[in-house]
Amino acid sequence: MSKIHSVQAQLFNVPLAEVLVDAKHGDHTFFQLITVTVRTEEGVEGVGYTYTGGKGGHAVLAMMQHDLIPFLIGKDSSQIEVLYDAMLWHVHYVARGGIASFAISAVDIALWDIRGKQSGQPLWKMAGGVSDRCKAYAGGIDLNFPLEKLLAQTEGYMQRGFNGVKIKVGQPELSEDLRRAAAVRDLLGQDRFFMVDANYSMSVDQAVSVARGFSEFDILWFEEPIIPDDYKGYGRIAAETGVPLAMGENLHTIHEFEYAFADASLSFIQPDASNCGGITGWLQVAARSAQHSIPVCSHGMQELHVSLVSAQPNPGWLEVHSFPIDQYTQRPLVVEDCQAVAPDTPGTGVVFDWDMLNAEHKDTP
Amino acid sequence: MSKIHSVQAQLFNVPLAEVLVDAKHGDHTFFQLITVTVRTEEGVEGVGYTYTGGKGGHAVLAMMQHDLIPFLIGKDSSQIEVLYDAMLWHVHYVARGGIASFAISAVDIALWDIRGKQSGQPLWKMAGGVSDRCKAYAGGIDLNFPLEKLLAQTEGYMQRGFNGVKIKVGQPELSEDLRRAAAVRDLLGQDRFFMVDANYSMSVDQAVSVARGFSEFDILWFEEPIIPDDYKGYGRIAAETGVPLAMGENLHTIHEFEYAFADASLSFIQPDASNCGGITGWLQVAARSAQHSIPVCSHGMQELHVSLVSAQPNPGWLEVHSFPIDQYTQRPLVVEDCQAVAPDTPGTGVVFDWDMLNAEHKDTP
Ligand SMILES: [Mg+2]
Ligand SMILES: [Mg+2]
Repeated sequence: MSKIHSVQAQLFNVPLAEVLVDAKHGDHTFFQLITVTVRTEEGVEGVGYTYTGGKGGHAVLAMMQHDLIPFLIGKDSSQIEVLYDAMLWHVHYVARGGIASFAISAVDIALWDIRGKQSGQPLWKMAGGVSDRCKAYAGGIDLNFPLEKLLAQTEGYMQRGFNGVKIKVGQPELSEDLRRAAAVRDLLGQDRFFMVDANYSMSVDQAVSVARGFSEFDILWFEEPIIPDDYKGYGRIAAETGVPLAMGENLHTIHEFEYAFADASLSFIQPDASNCGGITGWLQVAARSAQHSIPVCSHGMQELHVSLVSAQPNPGWLEVHSFPIDQYTQRPLVVEDCQAVAPDTPGTGVVFDWDMLNAEHKDTP
Repeated sequence: MSKIHSVQAQLFNVPLAEVLVDAKHGDHTFFQLITVTVRTEEGVEGVGYTYTGGKGGHAVLAMMQHDLIPFLIGKDSSQIEVLYDAMLWHVHYVARGGIASFAISAVDIALWDIRGKQSGQPLWKMAGGVSDRCKAYAGGIDLNFPLEKLLAQTEGYMQRGFNGVKIKVGQPELSEDLRRAAAVRDLLGQDRFFMVDANYSMSVDQAVSVARGFSEFDILWFEEPIIPDDYKGYGRIAAETGVPLAMGENLHTIHEFEYAFADASLSFIQPDASNCGGITGWLQVAARSAQHSIPVCSHGMQELHVSLVSAQPNPGWLEVHSFPIDQYTQRPLVVEDCQAVAPDTPGTGVVFDWDMLNAEHKDTP
């Protein structure tokens, strides 16, 4: 028994160094980081968080402050799985995905941080313990980059030690996507890994033609060609083209993942602990991905997912996302020999540099 | 072209006359009403709204204030369907259901109110125009009512002119559910209609046994026996028992409804315009229900749904919900000869009594 004494939630608007664009979410000039600090009566403190592309952060904060925090005070912080279910039911009528998934995820991560601190275990051990390191690739948000800049970015990724690179696709003309993909593959050489991500900007038919076009560039996966809701559409693209498909960053409930496993013929699954139920939710997806023999990857917040992906028996690739949350922590992501290395600190190992966050980015609603 | 000049959102915590309980959401002592008033540059004003069972209202308000309202200012209010799609994409990353569906629904309803005022048409005409009246039943939230009180409530519904009554089921013992259902059916007689609602408190197997138990009471439908996400589970219950099934109040995207139509073997569909995309979203569901020859019903906010259900070629039953939003409008629901009658006023016909709402219930976050 380790009762929750208090919970504090904060919202930070973190500016990006430059404008980043994908096919469906428009311009990103900043991202929102919503943190939650849970303190037990014994004084143990756990920190969790979620993030958005710039919208919804205030709604996440409002749900924490008005619905989740009053519910959490006095509850046993060590019963994470029980609390996870209880939170899902507590806000069920306004949930089943959406903002509630983001808010619950952040709280859940804070509870795991407490669990690790109390047991002296780092996250990669609590989450499965298979390894403390995993494959990692750099994911650009670069649909608006001219080709020269795209290639310079790719060059930079290689210099930072990455042997896998993902670019955005979904240009107005398919021929332009193909030209960019050809140039990037050329620069990467044949020994590095290459992925493309359409952010569901295409129809099934468009995706089928595009997939055929990309096939000559030996892509490791084609990410989110179509809307996440059309599981059977993914299945049709895979059946018609044989292209390896990946998705998951937009699935928020275990039921959505189950439909994806059943119908979408995915080669990789990409749950994001910031929006699929925190560490508890992510591990539920990972367990099912192992049953389906699909490598489990991640989306965003590399500083946390490195521990989760590394720990699995069926690890996929860690995405090193262009929202640099890890740069605001005391241990930005460590990459060695093309692998990302999980922290060995008890807890999640994600310790924010609050001075840096508070300095300019605090949003006071 | 009719540009949006300003949008104002408000949250009201409206107390209930007594504590209402169902099988999954615990005690209801109040409900949240979130209103949104859209004004065009020409000075036409439309009012929309959504509601919750007491949680999430502040998150809905926050999403309106921080994400939707800044997006709406200056847009053409007459392009409702375009704006509906644009709002879905604007918040997509934190949406696909949940809080976003509630917030977008409220805005959409306000835009339809403007459309009606500008064209001089009442909602039932804009929404299809087949009729201005429809069947209506009274839905209790009464799982906690002792049998005597349940029967008194039923008696009251009959006196108010209803020939259809729904009660909550999901007592700890099935025998108790059966005893209550037998008594209510006895009181209703054989000529009135009787529905039961489990608020997804059961497993598929439990629902199968319960459905067999209820069959002798000639129920019109068995509502939400299991979680809304398990479409195929609904299909199994229908296949194994032949019981007519109903659900929809927890489905928030058109994709979720499409899965329900495909797999859930429903006899009735119950979209709620407050959480499935407003009038635009509700009409999308209604169009698909007609294709599948399933009567379209409603959930909650009877003062608005009366116009939508009446207008359809495949009308089902209007739920007269126990959250009395209509009592806070200038025209509480009108029931004549067992039918609910839609207002003939241009717009939605839902005109709030602001004095009554402001008097005691305004929440000032
Ligand atoms: Mg992606
Ligand atoms: Mg119901």
